[in-house]
Formats: sequence, structure tokens, C-alpha cells
Amino acid sequence: MSASEKTVMETSLDYRDFVHTGPGTLAGRYLRMFWQPVCCSHELQPGCALPVRIMGEEFTLYRGQSGAPHLVGYRCAHRGTQLSLGWVEEDCIRCFYHGWKYDGSGQCVEQPAEANSFAEKVRIPGYPVREYIGLIFAYLGPGEPPALTRYAKFESRDISLDVAGLRRICNYFNNIDNSLDSAHVRFVHRRHRDTAQDQIVLGDPTISVEESEWGIKRYVKYPNGKSVTAFFGMPNINYLNGQVVDPEIKRADVLIFKVPVDDENHLHFEVRAIALTGERGRNWIQARREKRAKAGEDRADLVRAILAGKLKLSDVDPTRVDYVMVEDEVAQTGQGVIADRGNEHLGHSDRGVFLLRKIWERELRNLAEGKAVKQWTYRPEMVPTYPEA
Amino acid sequence: MSASEKTVMETSLDYRDFVHTGPGTLAGRYLRMFWQPVCCSHELQPGCALPVRIMGEEFTLYRGQSGAPHLVGYRCAHRGTQLSLGWVEEDCIRCFYHGWKYDGSGQCVEQPAEANSFAEKVRIPGYPVREYIGLIFAYLGPGEPPALTRYAKFESRDISLDVAGLRRICNYFNNIDNSLDSAHVRFVHRRHRDTAQDQIVLGDPTISVEESEWGIKRYVKYPNGKSVTAFFGMPNINYLNGQVVDPEIKRADVLIFKVPVDDENHLHFEVRAIALTGERGRNWIQARREKRAKAGEDRADLVRAILAGKLKLSDVDPTRVDYVMVEDEVAQTGQGVIADRGNEHLGHSDRGVFLLRKIWERELRNLAEGKAVKQWTYRPEMVPTYPEA
Amino acid sequence: MSASEKTVMETSLDYRDFVHTGPGTLAGRYLRMFWQPVCCSHELQPGCALPVRIMGEEFTLYRGQSGAPHLVGYRCAHRGTQLSLGWVEEDCIRCFYHGWKYDGSGQCVEQPAEANSFAEKVRIPGYPVREYIGLIFAYLGPGEPPALTRYAKFESRDISLDVAGLRRICNYFNNIDNSLDSAHVRFVHRRHRDTAQDQIVLGDPTISVEESEWGIKRYVKYPNGKSVTAFFGMPNINYLNGQVVDPEIKRADVLIFKVPVDDENHLHFEVRAIALTGERGRNWIQARREKRAKAGEDRADLVRAILAGKLKLSDVDPTRVDYVMVEDEVAQTGQGVIADRGNEHLGHSDRGVFLLRKIWERELRNLAEGKAVKQWTYRPEMVPTYPEA
Repeated sequence: MSASEKTVMETSLDYRDFVHTGPGTLAGRYLRMFWQPVCCSHELQPGCALPVRIMGEEFTLYRGQSGAPHLVGYRCAHRGTQLSLGWVEEDCIRCFYHGWKYDGSGQCVEQPAEANSFAEKVRIPGYPVREYIGLIFAYLGPGEPPALTRYAKFESRDISLDVAGLRRICNYFNNIDNSLDSAHVRFVHRRHRDTAQDQIVLGDPTISVEESEWGIKRYVKYPNGKSVTAFFGMPNINYLNGQVVDPEIKRADVLIFKVPVDDENHLHFEVRAIALTGERGRNWIQARREKRAKAGEDRADLVRAILAGKLKLSDVDPTRVDYVMVEDEVAQTGQGVIADRGNEHLGHSDRGVFLLRKIWERELRNLAEGKAVKQWTYRPEMVPTYPEA
Repeated sequence: MSASEKTVMETSLDYRDFVHTGPGTLAGRYLRMFWQPVCCSHELQPGCALPVRIMGEEFTLYRGQSGAPHLVGYRCAHRGTQLSLGWVEEDCIRCFYHGWKYDGSGQCVEQPAEANSFAEKVRIPGYPVREYIGLIFAYLGPGEPPALTRYAKFESRDISLDVAGLRRICNYFNNIDNSLDSAHVRFVHRRHRDTAQDQIVLGDPTISVEESEWGIKRYVKYPNGKSVTAFFGMPNINYLNGQVVDPEIKRADVLIFKVPVDDENHLHFEVRAIALTGERGRNWIQARREKRAKAGEDRADLVRAILAGKLKLSDVDPTRVDYVMVEDEVAQTGQGVIADRGNEHLGHSDRGVFLLRKIWERELRNLAEGKAVKQWTYRPEMVPTYPEA
Repeated sequence: MSASEKTVMETSLDYRDFVHTGPGTLAGRYLRMFWQPVCCSHELQPGCALPVRIMGEEFTLYRGQSGAPHLVGYRCAHRGTQLSLGWVEEDCIRCFYHGWKYDGSGQCVEQPAEANSFAEKVRIPGYPVREYIGLIFAYLGPGEPPALTRYAKFESRDISLDVAGLRRICNYFNNIDNSLDSAHVRFVHRRHRDTAQDQIVLGDPTISVEESEWGIKRYVKYPNGKSVTAFFGMPNINYLNGQVVDPEIKRADVLIFKVPVDDENHLHFEVRAIALTGERGRNWIQARREKRAKAGEDRADLVRAILAGKLKLSDVDPTRVDYVMVEDEVAQTGQGVIADRGNEHLGHSDRGVFLLRKIWERELRNLAEGKAVKQWTYRPEMVPTYPEA
């Protein structure tokens, strides 16, 4: 093999590096071309600030007293203290250390201790932010952001939105791979489905996948003739109809966004369209939120204990609100925090995973070579289906 | 010094690297030539699986519903999920993620979601396993395993076996060094011996050591004329008669195996021949086990707090079941997680430690140079002695 | 740029590396030219030993039964066990592992298990130690130590000494920088000052600084005409008059020493001259000590939770004894465990910080180039002032 061949091969391997998403990485550049959720709306109250970490970068997220969310750089330009420690004042944030104040664009607007202020010369990064369907989205890439995708079903007046952001302790691509993986449900979610008393689809399904304008359309047919349709939206969105283990609500459409925190952690945002409205809806959502907050406190420890063999999954209460997530996290973190894709043995049941990676690889190659990447578009007719009992 | 001399010197240094035991290391290759205990029998119930880590490698240990233990590779060949998360079915183990099933040899025997199964082409590693005197032994080396050493005293009907596996937070060789170290007892185990009210051997002993067919025979003579005989079995076994702090049982023969988990942790397996039989024996053993399980939960934290100066050993309850182990662990982890043998000042009292390292170094050199290593053999007459009061 | 220019530039950058203080580093060599406190007197009882870590090096500190403190090497010369685990006997320390005994100079004086002792040939490091104003000072540098600086005010019979050593989870230089930083008080200590009901100095001060024989004299003038004088003693001492949130004691002179543990942690020793004497003084001091010990247990966790956005500083009880320290630690650790000084934007209000770094850089350059460093001298007239209400 000549030296130039080596270079080509090494570069071509890079197109398959979906796991590293820090600044400058190929996958990181690609993901930064899309709006990404960075926080749930209900987790950021007016007048509050939070440090957020997305794709290995740190930011300051705050909500002005007006209610508008803002995303700016992590540190004050003065002496580097993290801005989330400071005070939100109207739509600005003031540093905790010496009181320098920034507006939502990152422009410094006040330096209290400087008799001759040079605030107008000081600026930290600021990022476009949108709030939609209970999530705060940010655009972290260069240039102008694309239009924000809208999902009609989630804007309906007939539903309430159940929104959650779950911290996960593995690389986001373990979870992306799982998006197209219909074969895991029968095993990983055996207990969850028993608890949900869902016996509609049984046995090993046959999966058909095809590339769509938005990503991948997946059609899953079960031995009993029942079928399921689901959609994957590039680069990291899953849209399906799933069980809700609750006596009132059997199933709901759910949009899932899988966003890297860094290479070893990710956020799994999910928005469910719950068929309840008004006060009944609000109460149901509030009760779920409280259960989820409680569950979120010990889930990582639970998963680590199961992986270490100190606890069995079968000993975990299957009615806990995040049980299906515990199952997924055990399976996916069980692949390694970063799965070793070099030692896999894929079969026909992995054709969804295979197509997904092929599309990702193609897009990363085009991006690396300066060619046009595909412009993905969600169409209103892309609505998941699930068979009636 | 010429370049070739350098090479020789560097290599000769390697013969003294007893601490690193990962795959491919010289000490690791040597240890893998022997059966090693990897788990206590009572810690693995039928139908259960555990992840185990030995010498820096990870494995899946499970006990079939038949009762037979099996040791196979850590990850499923399909998408890499760790197999211990799955289900044991008869003498096979099924992966949690997509249900691929393996037999105890590592052969894949089922791929539920694959209409055209290619299971016969898929195999993960499988290892020879034996169960003996309450321990599960595995052979992790290449080729055919040697015969498993048997210890007549521990097969006797007149005793019950008290078996324990204790996790230790230092390199295994700190503990190996300690095996031949009679001088430490008077200091390290001062409080334990006071608690045991053992005043039979007192003062600084004179130690004689000689290489034997099994390893090292040690003869320890005390100022009051009393003497003790003990045996070290290569490469990592200690066989002695020691105190049991218990009103019923004063002393017992104990076999100790010191097995690396990785370079910073090891397992200390001990099997005691307790002079009790039948139900009385079972009850005594069961009570010890419960106490040990409880003690095992906080021992590492206790040792770390003592090393950090936040707690004094003299504040630890000397009647706790693992107190002698706490003493040893404080002394040995106190040498550093990996002891720095380059700065030692050995004396005549270290002649056991010195001989032990000399033998280890000789064997590693022979192994490295492709020469025959010594075939160690345990003889039935190698039984430790301890003086009557 | 030529190769030699590169070298000069790289070296000149080193003169500004104040953060790394391990053996051989320039800042570490400089700090080792001064007596440094290593422990509070009241934290080391006669007959006790502690492991201490200072500037990345580990030592054994013990107090003989005579009451005299001694500082020797961390490990026994025999087999390397850390000496703090052993027994203090008169003014010697005996190793826990095999009983080798050392005197306070590090000379081995006993080897119990060696019939032919070679103790006189064995020596570990020993360091000059002084006890003064409630602190144990050590000299860790080469050659003869300088005279120990005395502070008349703290030797007065009219006061009691309130002494504390607080562990901090950032580089010591974040805290050094803060010593000359008058502008932070209004923001960082807003709540502390409200709690202390201190309205004497208000608004943004004008700071004047000048190099003195001891370090830097700082004169701070407030908009209301009130002024404050404070002193910085090279290389790491702050001497000021500060609030004590207590109904009995409003303010007190305080000497602060900022000593690296390693590059990511430091000890903040403070000695307050409390205007109480006799039993009343002792009781007040004792009550503070108990509160501080309790506060010290969770402060690091508290600070980490605030930095992570899981807790707000405003939710912390402002009457806790170390609240002002929590505020400082949030601001300073909020700069990063090691602040990135390459991205700062300093203003006129930072002139104290600027002068401090200039002096440090000059001294490090002189040290590196083998030139004389300045001999710093504390003068009795250097006493901080604070305005009356």
C-alpha cells in the first residue's frame, strides 16, 4: 500500500467516526448544521441561568425576566468566571465575580468597577435560540440557522405535551443506532411491555427501511400481520408511537432528540403528545414530571450497578416512570460507553442500522469534501402508526 | 554502553515486572499458565451471570440451570452488549439486546431475529472452568490446562469450608510480597492478635526459607522456642495455619489465592478448613458469610479514610470479621497502590520476600527466553504447623 | 522567528507560570524559599501523625509526646509504607509494617526484626518545623531556612487566635489573584455583607497599590469617602481587617496564607485576632472550630453543586460559619480549577492583580536567571485599617 492510499483509507475511516462531536470534528460540524434542543422549557424559570454542555462545549443558558431564553458563552470575558453563577437582570446576565453585564447577544453592556468603561469593545459568543413544543433549541453552527422544523401534531389543541430531558451515560450514537433497531424491543423491553400489558405486536418482526426526504421511513411487520410505521429524522431524531405505562394513557406519539453532551454522555429529549387537555392534562403532566425528577436522581447509579453485576434489572421496579429508559440504557451502555463498531456481526435484522450509518457516512463524506449535503425536510404526512388491538 | 547492552538491561528489568498482568505482559502470561480462582461458588447461583474482571480482561461468568459454571467472552458478537446482562437458559446465555444465544463454549446457537441464521459461524471465547473447594477456577491461558491441584485436608469430611473472596485496592504483588513476610505480624496484626488472645508466639522471629517442589517452605522460629511452618505455592498461593477470632474456633488451615483484577486491584480468595461438620458447620459458615458481606461494603472506604489520615485504625472495631484483612490492607495499600520496589532497603528479615522475587524473576526470564519453566507440584505432606499453647 | 528567539519566548512564558508548584517547577522553587504553614496546631494532637500533601509532595507530620511537631518523608525506607499509619513513640515515629523507627530528623533509629541492625545507614528526609500563632510552619526548600516572620498584633495578650485551615478545590493562584481584588467584594460578598449588616463601605472603590518592603500595600477608597488599607505579603500572604459574622465580634485582623496542596487544590489558612481573652475567648474559639469542622465536611460538594447548576448560592444558609468562603470559592473555582489567564480582559480595577503578577513574574525571572530575588520584610507598622461606622 502506498502512502497516498493510506491517507485515503484513513480519511475514509473518518467518515464513519460518528461518535466524536467536539468542535472541529466532522460529526460535530454536521450536527451543528441543525437546530438542537439544549434544555426543556420547564427546567429554566424566568430570571434563572444554567450551565449547559453540548457536544463538548460549554455555554450559559438563561431566561430573561421577560421569559425569553438566551444562550451565550460560558465564561465572563473579564477574569473567566462562569456566567451561570451570576444574576439575570431583565434580559441580561451579570457576572458573579465583578458584575460585568452582558445582553443576550453576548455584548458586554456594563463594567461597574471601571470608571472608563470599555464594555462596547467586549463581546462573548451569543447563539440563536428558539423555544418550541416545550424545548429550548439552539443553533450552534456557523452562518444563518435553517428554519426550525415544525410538527403539526404537537401543536394540536387536543393534546398536552409531556416533555423530558434524560441524561444518559453513553455516547449518543449508541442511542442513534438503537433508533432503527426494531429487533431489540422483544428482548430489551420484555418486562416493560409485560407491565404495559401490550400484546398487540409479538414475535420477531420483519423490517423494511427506505431513505426519505427527512431521513428513514421504517415499516415493521409482525408475524401476526400487525404492522408499525416509524420515522427517523436526520441527523438525530426519532418519531414513533410508543407505550405509556399509565392506566389513562395507553400510547402516544413521541419525538425523540438524541444530543451529545460530550463523547461519553448524551441528552435524550422526548416530547409526547398526550391525549389530554386543560387541567386534566396539566395535572397528568405535572405528576409525570415529579416522578421523572425523582427517577433521574438515581438512574445513572442504577445502570452502573446493573452493569457491574451488583444489581439485577429484574430487581428494579418496572412501574417506575423511566423504566423503559433504564432498559434501553442498560442495553446501550452495556455496549461500552462508546460501542466498538469494529467487532460487530450485523445480520439482516440490522438493515435499519446499516442504512442509517450509510446515510450518515455519505453526508459526512460530502461535508468533508466540500460537496452539498442533503437538505432534509419533514413532511406533515410523516406520522407514525401503531395497530389497534 | 552499547545499544545491544541497553536492550539486554531493559529486558532484564522486565523480568522483575511482577505487577503488570494484562494480556501480553510477561507476568500476565506466567499467571495464565495456572488455574486461577475467579469467583466463590456461593456467590454465583444457578441461572445467574456475573461480569468478572481478571488480569485486566473482562469475562462473562454464569452458572447454568444444571449448576455447572461457564466462563465465556465479555461481549455478544452481534453488537457488543455485555453478556452478563442477559438470561441464562439451561446451560446457555442469551444476550439482553437482541437475544443471541451462546453455549458454555462460546458457540452462538441462536439468532432470533435472523430468518437465515448464521449462528454456526459466530463464536466468542470460552474457557475451561472447574469448581473445587468452594471456588470457581478458570484457565485463561493458551493450549490445554494443567491438572487442577488438590488439597486433601480441604476435602476431608471432618471439616467445613469457609470460603471468601475479598476485593483489595492494591496491586496483587503487594500482597504476594506479604506472603513470605513473618516480620510484619508483630506490628501489623498487633491488635488482631491481642483480640484473638494469641500469646503463643511472641517477639521477632528468625525465618528460614527454602525452595520446594511447590514453591517455598518457610520455617519460622520464635524467641520462646516455638515454631511455625508455612508454605507458598507458586505463583500466588499461601498455605498456612492462622487465627480465627471466634470463641468456638481458635485456628484453622487456610489456603489463600491472590489474583489480579487489574494492576490496581486484586481478589484475595481464602478457603478455611473449619473443624466443624454438619448443621453446626453450616450455621457457623453462614453466619460468617453474612458478616463478611456486610464488612465488604465499607472496607475499601475504611482503608482509604485511614490512609488519608481521616480515621485511625485504632478506631476500627477489632472484632469485625475482616479486621485482620483491614490491617493487612492498610499496610499493603500504604506502600502505594503499586509499591515502588526501587527505593527499598531490604534486610535479613526480608529473606523470604527476597527468595520469592528471585524465583519469580527466574521463571519470568525462562518464559521470556522460551526456556522451560519449573513444573510446580503440591505434595500431600506440605501441611502447615502451628505450636500448641 | 529563529530557534533561539523561540527559546527565549518559551522561557519568558514560564516566568508567568504561577500555577504549577510541584518539585522542580519555577513557582514551586520560589514558594519553597519561604516558611509555609502546613497544618493548624489544634489539628495535630500529641502522639498523632498525619499525611500531608504540599505543592504536590507528600510528607509525614507528627507531634511527639513532648508536644513538638516534626515533618519527615512520607514513606518508610524499608518497604515504602506511609509512615503516618504508624505509632508515635516519644519524639519518634514507628512504621506500621515492620516497626522501623525514625527520629524527627528522619534518621532511622531502630529495626526490630534485624538482628544486625543497619539503622544508622538509613535516613529519610526531615524538614525544619516551627509552631507559631496556631500554625505549624515548615521549610521545604534547600539550605538553611530564613527567619520566621513575626506579627506583633497576633502575639498580643489582648486577643485570642481563631485559626482555621480550609481545603479549597482550585489552584492557589486563583485565590492569590483575589487577594488584591477589591472590586469583587461588592458582588461576590453581597449576601455575606448584608448578613453582617456592614454598610460602612459601599459602591465601587478606587484602588491604589504600591510595592512595599513586604509585598504590596493597598489603599482602597469608597465613594462615601471611607477608606481601607490592606497588605499583601509575598509570596502568598494576605493581611487585612475583615468581617466576622457574629453578634459579639464585628471585625478582626486576619492573616491568610494560601498554600498549594497540588495544582488543583490548596489550603487557605487563616488566623484571626479576636478581641476576647481568657475563658470567654477559649469558648468562642471552640464554638467556631466545631462549626467550621462541620461546615468543612460538605463545602466542596456544595461548591461543585453550585457550579454544576444543581444548587443556587442563594439557597445556601448565609449564616453558616464559612459562608464568605463559599462565596469566594464559587467565584474562584468558577474561573476553572486553573484559571485561563490567556483570555482575560483586565481593566483599571485590576491594577492590584496586575501589579501582583508583575512582581511575581519579576521574581521568577530573577530566580530562573540565577539573579538575586528580593528579600521581603514585614514591618510592624504594616497593620490593616478599616473605617469606623
